[in-house]
Amino acid sequence: AKPKVGYYISNKKSNRDIIEKLSAIKVSDIKSLPINVTESTSVYDAIVTLFLENVGTLFVVEDEALKGVISRKDLLKASMGGKDLNAIPVGIVMTRMPKIIYCLEEDSILEAAEKIIEHEIDCIPIITHLPNNKVKAIGRISKTNITNVLLEITK
Amino acid sequence: AKPKVGYYISNKKSNRDIIEKLSAIKVSDIKSLPINVTESTSVYDAIVTLFLENVGTLFVVEDEALKGVISRKDLLKASMGGKDLNAIPVGIVMTRMPKIIYCLEEDSILEAAEKIIEHEIDCIPIITHLPNNKVKAIGRISKTNITNVLLEITK
Repeated sequence: AKPKVGYYISNKKSNRDIIEKLSAIKVSDIKSLPINVTESTSVYDAIVTLFLENVGTLFVVEDEALKGVISRKDLLKASMGGKDLNAIPVGIVMTRMPKIIYCLEEDSILEAAEKIIEHEIDCIPIITHLPNNKVKAIGRISKTNITNVLLEITK
Repeated sequence: AKPKVGYYISNKKSNRDIIEKLSAIKVSDIKSLPINVTESTSVYDAIVTLFLENVGTLFVVEDEALKGVISRKDLLKASMGGKDLNAIPVGIVMTRMPKIIYCLEEDSILEAAEKIIEHEIDCIPIITHLPNNKVKAIGRISKTNITNVLLEITK
């Protein structure tokens, strides 16, 4: 549901300060480390990795290149089928390149936040381009990172 | 991982404006509606509800009173056991009162954000007290709501 926001966007001058401040924070300033699995990792092992690493999203990587992204939601959907989770590789439930929403190191956190909201995802990879036309995930930015920023700028 | 934040908290004056602005936004201004199930709802049906309602957290309610909270993480954990998800009621996997972290309508979004980060949860109920010593969830506030605020204050 869309939040009611009208009343707190009245002070244009103060908003300009906030925009300036938030635009200056780059995703690379607040990024978390990527947690990677491979396409053949089972859904079961991916869920275990989520809990062990305490994250909500895993990246599927092969030879340094980002091949897919797998979220808690993807794993939950895979769990509904009643099949043996050890027998399902994440490769068949992940979101695959080129459908992955990503951002670049120099993007501001506002651009990342916009993508997260627009595409209804929890976390996006921060990538660099590899010479072979592939991309490498060098970090991730999530709603948790963004919630942290909101707290940090008020300290 | 803790974000690197040192460099953007230098301008104390501008921070005061931001704190003032964000402290004035109450959770009730940006809340989403609660999505409720009952203790006897199966884990399977709870997952279906998550997807249909497009939320990450459900509240478990009985006679208006909030009895528990169930997250994507709780449901994912329940799915790992290899049992029939139709046979497991959410009552045995939910976080139960009085262990639930909640906030009140008049709390600022900063207080909610702090609780979300401190307790590593995605979403907290906004409650009011019922006359019978129980509580009722009148809304929910999530990292999505907070990410939205960050975008809205820069518009």
